[in-house]
Amino acid sequence: MDAAIKNGLSSALIKRLDLSKNGKFDSMCEGVLDVAKLDDPLNKVTLATKLDDGLNLYRLTCPVGVLLIIFESRPEVIANITALAIKSGNAAILKGGKESLETFKVLADVINRILAEETKVPKNAIQLISTRGEVSDLLKQDRYIDLVIPRGSNALVRNIKDNTKIPVLGHADGICSIYIDEFADIEKATKIIVDAKTNYPAGCNAVETLLINEKLIGTESYTTILKALAEAEVTSHLVPELLKSLPKELSSSYSKFFVEATEADFNKEFLSFDIAVKPIGSVTDAIIHINQHSSKHTDAIITEDKANAEKFLQGIDSSGVYWNCSTRFADGFRYGFGTEVGISTNKIHARGPVGLEGLVCYYYQMRGDGHVVGDYLGGGGTRVFKHEKLNINHL
Amino acid sequence: MDAAIKNGLSSALIKRLDLSKNGKFDSMCEGVLDVAKLDDPLNKVTLATKLDDGLNLYRLTCPVGVLLIIFESRPEVIANITALAIKSGNAAILKGGKESLETFKVLADVINRILAEETKVPKNAIQLISTRGEVSDLLKQDRYIDLVIPRGSNALVRNIKDNTKIPVLGHADGICSIYIDEFADIEKATKIIVDAKTNYPAGCNAVETLLINEKLIGTESYTTILKALAEAEVTSHLVPELLKSLPKELSSSYSKFFVEATEADFNKEFLSFDIAVKPIGSVTDAIIHINQHSSKHTDAIITEDKANAEKFLQGIDSSGVYWNCSTRFADGFRYGFGTEVGISTNKIHARGPVGLEGLVCYYYQMRGDGHVVGDYLGGGGTRVFKHEKLNINHL
Repeated sequence: MDAAIKNGLSSALIKRLDLSKNGKFDSMCEGVLDVAKLDDPLNKVTLATKLDDGLNLYRLTCPVGVLLIIFESRPEVIANITALAIKSGNAAILKGGKESLETFKVLADVINRILAEETKVPKNAIQLISTRGEVSDLLKQDRYIDLVIPRGSNALVRNIKDNTKIPVLGHADGICSIYIDEFADIEKATKIIVDAKTNYPAGCNAVETLLINEKLIGTESYTTILKALAEAEVTSHLVPELLKSLPKELSSSYSKFFVEATEADFNKEFLSFDIAVKPIGSVTDAIIHINQHSSKHTDAIITEDKANAEKFLQGIDSSGVYWNCSTRFADGFRYGFGTEVGISTNKIHARGPVGLEGLVCYYYQMRGDGHVVGDYLGGGGTRVFKHEKLNINHL
Repeated sequence: MDAAIKNGLSSALIKRLDLSKNGKFDSMCEGVLDVAKLDDPLNKVTLATKLDDGLNLYRLTCPVGVLLIIFESRPEVIANITALAIKSGNAAILKGGKESLETFKVLADVINRILAEETKVPKNAIQLISTRGEVSDLLKQDRYIDLVIPRGSNALVRNIKDNTKIPVLGHADGICSIYIDEFADIEKATKIIVDAKTNYPAGCNAVETLLINEKLIGTESYTTILKALAEAEVTSHLVPELLKSLPKELSSSYSKFFVEATEADFNKEFLSFDIAVKPIGSVTDAIIHINQHSSKHTDAIITEDKANAEKFLQGIDSSGVYWNCSTRFADGFRYGFGTEVGISTNKIHARGPVGLEGLVCYYYQMRGDGHVVGDYLGGGGTRVFKHEKLNINHL
């Protein structure tokens, strides 16, 4: 902390670095104990098939391999991520932000000492690197590193994605949208949009775009929603047609909270008390807009009409699709995963808040007794496979 | 076929192009019907949790999105892959080899006509491209294409992996190894190694490296194994120490089947009647060799010693690890998946022979009734999540 102050870091950053305040140290330790309590994700048999007499196939969960985890200033991530990596049987190379290097070194020492003294985890299973040069070297090692997990700003994630062939688990943008349907309960809609925007605007699951069914524009409901946002000190970026026809009640008392939206505002993660607002013709149009503009993170519909809700739930191509609740629920802890590795907007492997499951994959074991393919149909012989499902406790 | 003959293609290639021989056309059609019979992989609820009263979370399977499938000459792949793509709800862009372009066009016409006339699948869900230039453009579209599936030679797969940021499902190399343990049953070992090498040497699941426990070297068992390979017309590439001390029985009658191995032979996919052979000290040494040299495809141990087998099954970092059976079993049909998209040596998403499951992922639905994070502990409120497991049929 002395070095941080001496180097003139911003007070926001210093606050993030300081583990001694707000029970951060205790909750970091708690987090490790929480991971210890999770079910062992490894060696679970997820498929068992008798191919033939004496020839059985099993699919078992296993670690992914070597993880490269890159994070920015928050030093408590080290403990959390290390616990997750060990629990899932992966080796991990950790790179923290330079601002938390000293804390990082102390934590890494503790972790390595405890691993060596108290466990059978190999000594170098968790490794620390500290320079940017090392990161760019490591990002080239797609033969030896199996998964990169960046935890930090969009810029960090985007930079990593652009500079490696190793799969990256995470998300660069969190452009979440909420569509308020013509059949929305306006009280719920108002509560949800204010929560989704203001509960933690810097979060990737905060809402950035508000689509309002055009039948609501100009109604009392419309005024209620925009007024609630203004009262919560949110600046609404309205498309020109909406700004021009702003209800008097709003233009008189809250004018500073309404500005004109640009095209770019609908592809933007504000991460602030700002939201882009646009009228939309139907639930179908909302789906089209969101699938084109969102970052496939989390999007919600507010409606009392079940058919419209189901259409939205089916039609949106995001890792989380919500009905009548805040996008802020997109979080591993809230989902009940105990902890999270991060939130993935990828289309394969793991999507949404990723718990331990995202750090494991699977492999096949086959156990035979001298079996060869040449004995079977298709391989030159006459035997036919039985393909009988076995109980997964068979192994 | 006329064009193929006129253009002087090799007879092996012409044979691959010809759908009219060896029941290829019928088995292509059969393959489509097999896919139709598979379980629908979509909209399966794989997790259901009550977060709180009226707030439920569901995880559902969904298509990956847009697939780019690139394959070489075998035209029957079109029908198979199209069936898989449609069954899994994905859109697909198909690029076949130029040698099968005419067949490809006819099949694509049939597919598009049937889709339009008989189904609700959107007209452009399956698209055909025909030039290499288009492929390199498409490989850059990582925002719009979610998964590339190359089916063809190592060179094709490697080239694609080197030229895209889109995840690639498949394998470049199939460097499979078999370790014959000191406690192997030599009859089983001989049968398995000959099958794994000669049943179909061009297959990615054919064995390329044979590791023999050093206690067996020079014994009658050793001679039996090498003789069986020579009788099957397999050339054994022996490390110098083995070649020098080749048993007389072999050096007299089979000398042309024994040559000196180079270092490179142990990193090579021969795809021919060749195998690299090396003595090895223990099951642990075999694990180390294989994890360093194999392509993480399929590797096997031959032993009657359960402890050694279990050590091998746990220690090898490949998508398939076998005990006392041929590596040639690594195949979607043999695994009982009905068909396969390909065999993946990736470490995430899907490994080994990949069936329809590899073409789906999942997303989360949350269904609430005006729920906001601000009401809960951690979000500023006092409510506590219930996180009760629901029956997956609850949705």
